[in-house]
Amino acid sequence: MTPAATQAFHCAEALLPGGWARNVRIEVMDGRFANVAADMPAQPGDEVLPMALPGLPNLHSHAFQRGMAGLAERRGPGADSFWTWREVMYRFLDRLGPEDLFAIAAMAYVEMLEGGFTRVGEFHYLHHDPAGQAYAGAAMAEALAGAAAESGIALTLLPVFYAHAGFGGTAPGPGQRRFICTIDGYARLREASGAAIAHLPDAVLGCAPHSLRAVTAGELSALIGLAGDGPVHIHVAEQQAEVEACLAHHGARPVEWLLGAAPVDRRWCLVHATHMTEAETRALAASGAVAGLCPITEANLGDGLFPAPAYLAAGGAWGVGSDSNVLVSAAEELRWLEYGQRLAHQGRNLFAPAPGASTGAALFAGALAGGGQALGMAGGIAPGRPADFLCLNAAHPALTGAGGDGWMDGWIFAAGGQPVDRVWRAGRAVVSQGRHHARDGIVARYRATLAGLAA
Amino acid sequence: MTPAATQAFHCAEALLPGGWARNVRIEVMDGRFANVAADMPAQPGDEVLPMALPGLPNLHSHAFQRGMAGLAERRGPGADSFWTWREVMYRFLDRLGPEDLFAIAAMAYVEMLEGGFTRVGEFHYLHHDPAGQAYAGAAMAEALAGAAAESGIALTLLPVFYAHAGFGGTAPGPGQRRFICTIDGYARLREASGAAIAHLPDAVLGCAPHSLRAVTAGELSALIGLAGDGPVHIHVAEQQAEVEACLAHHGARPVEWLLGAAPVDRRWCLVHATHMTEAETRALAASGAVAGLCPITEANLGDGLFPAPAYLAAGGAWGVGSDSNVLVSAAEELRWLEYGQRLAHQGRNLFAPAPGASTGAALFAGALAGGGQALGMAGGIAPGRPADFLCLNAAHPALTGAGGDGWMDGWIFAAGGQPVDRVWRAGRAVVSQGRHHARDGIVARYRATLAGLAA
Repeated sequence: MTPAATQAFHCAEALLPGGWARNVRIEVMDGRFANVAADMPAQPGDEVLPMALPGLPNLHSHAFQRGMAGLAERRGPGADSFWTWREVMYRFLDRLGPEDLFAIAAMAYVEMLEGGFTRVGEFHYLHHDPAGQAYAGAAMAEALAGAAAESGIALTLLPVFYAHAGFGGTAPGPGQRRFICTIDGYARLREASGAAIAHLPDAVLGCAPHSLRAVTAGELSALIGLAGDGPVHIHVAEQQAEVEACLAHHGARPVEWLLGAAPVDRRWCLVHATHMTEAETRALAASGAVAGLCPITEANLGDGLFPAPAYLAAGGAWGVGSDSNVLVSAAEELRWLEYGQRLAHQGRNLFAPAPGASTGAALFAGALAGGGQALGMAGGIAPGRPADFLCLNAAHPALTGAGGDGWMDGWIFAAGGQPVDRVWRAGRAVVSQGRHHARDGIVARYRATLAGLAA
Repeated sequence: MTPAATQAFHCAEALLPGGWARNVRIEVMDGRFANVAADMPAQPGDEVLPMALPGLPNLHSHAFQRGMAGLAERRGPGADSFWTWREVMYRFLDRLGPEDLFAIAAMAYVEMLEGGFTRVGEFHYLHHDPAGQAYAGAAMAEALAGAAAESGIALTLLPVFYAHAGFGGTAPGPGQRRFICTIDGYARLREASGAAIAHLPDAVLGCAPHSLRAVTAGELSALIGLAGDGPVHIHVAEQQAEVEACLAHHGARPVEWLLGAAPVDRRWCLVHATHMTEAETRALAASGAVAGLCPITEANLGDGLFPAPAYLAAGGAWGVGSDSNVLVSAAEELRWLEYGQRLAHQGRNLFAPAPGASTGAALFAGALAGGGQALGMAGGIAPGRPADFLCLNAAHPALTGAGGDGWMDGWIFAAGGQPVDRVWRAGRAVVSQGRHHARDGIVARYRATLAGLAA
């Protein structure tokens, strides 16, 4: 579907950067919001909506892992952990080619859009062929770009630099052969990746040192030089074993060491940052960087819980990511971000900033602002920004009587089924009645791809 | 829809009490499984299914609370907790009459069936009119029975005895006036409640002392006498404040005290049992009682996490309940039961009993067995049991290639959207393509009811 040069919507309610407004007329031109005005009557030809919310950014995804969702929920021979899960993941990707990645990523992106995510930050490390040889150009990045184009999701591509199996420049293992680059090879691959996404509307190119395990201090400096003003993402402090290894090698904890060794600022996204002391928590908040929280995956992998109350009290920025894509749901990420904290602290409404404030609205606002910052493109229904927005299903039982912040409380905490009714991305309608317009074909191809990989 | 006297199904795979079987022919007569045989060819007229699983029991529900889902996710004036949530709940029920309860319960039961719950344990304490006066007969229990009949869900009704606001026989507060009975009044109400459900197929009547706060030791003895061989359910050790009050009053912790003071055995379900010492955990497991775990509600209320590893190691029985019904999803209850433990213990696959075992299958089997025990009616696809079963959507992307235990891993951990395709209750098809057959009318009435309560 080609977007019309100008479209107009009239919303009984819409969440604007300043808060909820009523009778909002929204004009979209060339995929961006043009005029947004409250307290306006509908005009003939306007598409009339009961409400509108900005689309949410999904700041951390490994799209290919959607294809192994559910396959690692079996106990291994010893104690299971992140590290045994990683072995399952390495085996899954042994055979994955560019066409497979395209099919799996398109499925994941369809599910993201259906749940209200309109931009994805793809933390992309699967660069080479199954033997570890470089493809011509950036074949795997092109597959991701193709999936983004087909589904319509906005893409922030974060090509990953990965060189070592552990601290101190340990040689990589055979399971890591598809990820490994030199700095020069990475610079070429990143340039080719930028070319691969250049045709996508609103695409952003970032830079991603994989982790303090996989990157030496010298390599980290070189990568920061390559990143320019674009987003810099890094996995950090996801696992206790990583904290211990970092202490042993650097004499400092991961977040502590990174904040000292690199110019961490608003361009940065520290993914997970699960295991921090109070001092690290305050320092990360003060840096202006975004904490990239992935509640479903962090629970699936048994990572642990982020120190949210202290981080929020220090004014830290955060967003959410679907990471392993074991289950794709913006609402469930936000719900269990709050619920994990409630369980740990035996209280309620811990993300709500003040008495009377809605927790759902606070979760939504935090993820919108932090995710947009981390992915290099601010979201929100405002002139000049990409026209990425959604309309909840006002007829859903759990949204009965909802209005204002109650929309988010109902959506995030109470609504099973399909509360997201319609989604627009760059002004193009991609989801109606909870279904992506290209779902059937993308599902069929996904199923055939998985069957082929299992054969 | 009236069930035919005999129906037959042919399932490529079905989960039987002994494990997965292939080419299973299932005959249903008068709402019960009649013959169940593996390795059989399909016969003409058989309904052909790709797979069949038993329906799950939902062992703890307060159906009316579905109507306030999402309304308590705002920060209060002080620190929020279970206790401030309870004030919101008391205000909500100030105006709720029998017709309102009928409409809200029917909505909740439709959502339960759509998610794979085929029996509900209704922990029912909303007995009297808004002024605290008894209705003629058991009007509120009749409303629940009506909702069960209309939706088709199997009902274990657990009329609640509630007499005091706190330990030591404290007088109840005004917010509790609709719950309060004398023992004699309760005995009459329970008898009327039994009459109200007598027409429902497979209905079970239990007995529910509300909690150690609300019931004195003498009242507890009297209630056990009334219960006979039926289920006995009680809230216990949900909140730290309750543990402290119990210690102050009885000189013992709640589970410790209850196991000493009452003949707790396989008839019993201890709901929550969140805060236990290791000795209490082992003793509860040894009693044969079921721990009634409500992961979504316990997270929503900030209760804390059940000590699952020690309890499982001791062979304890457990099941799940949707409790406050803030969100109704069997899969999400099981997923986050496991995930809460992964986060607390920083490991994976903690419910899987042995190397190679599927966590999804272990969660499913535990909830089926423990829930059936707690609700006084064993589930499972076996002759003589109620014909309560479901078929997952084999075309769901997250169930691609699933078979055997992989069905449960995919359903519980990986499948958003609507993975439950069809549900039969007492042999009657109640859900097709993920939608309850009476959904539209029940939703319309539910929405009108909530609008009336808000007016």
